[in-house]
Amino acid sequence: MLKTILTDCSKDISAYIHHTPVHTSGSINNIVGGEVFFKCENLQKTGSFKIRGATNAILHLSDKQKEKGVIAHSSGNFAQALALAARNLNVKSYIIMPNTAPAIKKDATLGYGATMIECEPTISSREQTASKIEKQTGATFIHPSNNMDVIVGQSTATRELLKEYPDLDIVITPVGGGGLIAGTALAASCFGKDCKVYGGEPAGADDAYRSMISGKIETNITTNTIADGLISMLGDINFPIIRKHVEKIILVSEEEIIDSMKLIFERMKIIIEPSSAVAVAAMLKNKKEFSSKKIGVILSGGNVDLGRLPF
Amino acid sequence: MLKTILTDCSKDISAYIHHTPVHTSGSINNIVGGEVFFKCENLQKTGSFKIRGATNAILHLSDKQKEKGVIAHSSGNFAQALALAARNLNVKSYIIMPNTAPAIKKDATLGYGATMIECEPTISSREQTASKIEKQTGATFIHPSNNMDVIVGQSTATRELLKEYPDLDIVITPVGGGGLIAGTALAASCFGKDCKVYGGEPAGADDAYRSMISGKIETNITTNTIADGLISMLGDINFPIIRKHVEKIILVSEEEIIDSMKLIFERMKIIIEPSSAVAVAAMLKNKKEFSSKKIGVILSGGNVDLGRLPF
Repeated sequence: MLKTILTDCSKDISAYIHHTPVHTSGSINNIVGGEVFFKCENLQKTGSFKIRGATNAILHLSDKQKEKGVIAHSSGNFAQALALAARNLNVKSYIIMPNTAPAIKKDATLGYGATMIECEPTISSREQTASKIEKQTGATFIHPSNNMDVIVGQSTATRELLKEYPDLDIVITPVGGGGLIAGTALAASCFGKDCKVYGGEPAGADDAYRSMISGKIETNITTNTIADGLISMLGDINFPIIRKHVEKIILVSEEEIIDSMKLIFERMKIIIEPSSAVAVAAMLKNKKEFSSKKIGVILSGGNVDLGRLPF
Repeated sequence: MLKTILTDCSKDISAYIHHTPVHTSGSINNIVGGEVFFKCENLQKTGSFKIRGATNAILHLSDKQKEKGVIAHSSGNFAQALALAARNLNVKSYIIMPNTAPAIKKDATLGYGATMIECEPTISSREQTASKIEKQTGATFIHPSNNMDVIVGQSTATRELLKEYPDLDIVITPVGGGGLIAGTALAASCFGKDCKVYGGEPAGADDAYRSMISGKIETNITTNTIADGLISMLGDINFPIIRKHVEKIILVSEEEIIDSMKLIFERMKIIIEPSSAVAVAAMLKNKKEFSSKKIGVILSGGNVDLGRLPF
């Protein structure tokens, strides 16, 4: 049943996304002592995996809902992803962004045809604005990570990876709001052969790590991390999946994140954002656990301010 | 005959190089008004196309020559390429590098198992050192661009590209010493369907542009360019090929090079060096000539000092 849902999702969204390439690096294989397969979602449309879940979520709306449009509050990758997914499917999108968001992010989202609504940079203003727009327009709010259709959409990256490399021992992803790792866990359980799922998380925003220990959703005490895509908290839809299927979450330091980001730039000649480097850092930090293994790493995105690289 | 040579070369070197991917970008297609296919030699082993020619040149040595090794003087991409190609083929390599070359370049070349010989940073010291090593070791000097086996090796990138996209109207490459564009021209004439070859060159190192006008090999009057891979001059082996088969050479400014480099980083999430950006800049500067066309762009390399990006 789940297998069918994930397989159908892959087919449904295939016209709207890139089937991203898998890159390898001899020198990184040497460092790890295993075989590493990088799924390049940084080369995905809008520069991150989020277009997968956004597209699947819109496809699962009723015709009436589609007519009224979709809403997101995000200043990050999900804003651009939902805007493009909506445009591709002839659906209106309303994106709520704090008035402090950089012009480049607003412009990118406007470029995909979204209607932009600015709010104050507070959670209450964001939620009030979202609910106001919901009432005014009748549009449907799409959560970036705690939404089953979004999670199923995100699973397709790992499904593609396991189709090419069916005998991966481990797939590792960064953990933020939990949508990517939950989708990855579903795909690994359906299409892998005893394929374990690991998460990497910044030590400065370690809510998922603590949630796995306590067994309930914890909030971040600090959000001191360059990996700005990973400061959201888990949700009631994705956490049970993560708890059941994810082997462990590995914490990494800011220095480890930056070093890993630089390593990928230098050795693989591709651009990844700090959030993606978190998964790489988690692997490099625990070489013993990964050596002699076949490892899939989801490089989640490549949207980085090139004028402010941390190295 | 030529077709057979180029086809055989592709087969001969295939075990030692990456068959690099071709990337596309919807937003760059929109900017150009055509369809652009980027051949990603920045993702090639050692980070540039040079491993193709280096491998082919070594393969064409006699057994006796192979036993004695190969020599290059280079502080750039050819040094690493020849060192790795030699190691792959169990041949010794001697790389002559100015004592002023950055440690990172020396280390990379040493990492591929080369013997490093330092010289003073002058042409005469470099040539004296090379001839001394030649006498001492009996090793064969391999020129990075003015060597027919090297040129044939470089042709294989465009052969691969035309195999995937047989109806390209134009292929454009950067022009430095002339090895890449000469190889590209040979491949386009053998495997293209009326496929024209263009070159991009920095206005601050415009020897090839002037050579095409005067009909003889000109030297650079200035070498004021960030594209440090493109300051060498053409040679008597590659220039006749270029003169016969290359449609035109387009000069670009430093600002255009830097803007194009940034555009590729931002839109395509891959890392290219300034020399590669020269070909992109030449296309973007002449949109009229490229619009409605199918264009292949050879992204020649990705070896860039990330701590000193020009944007």
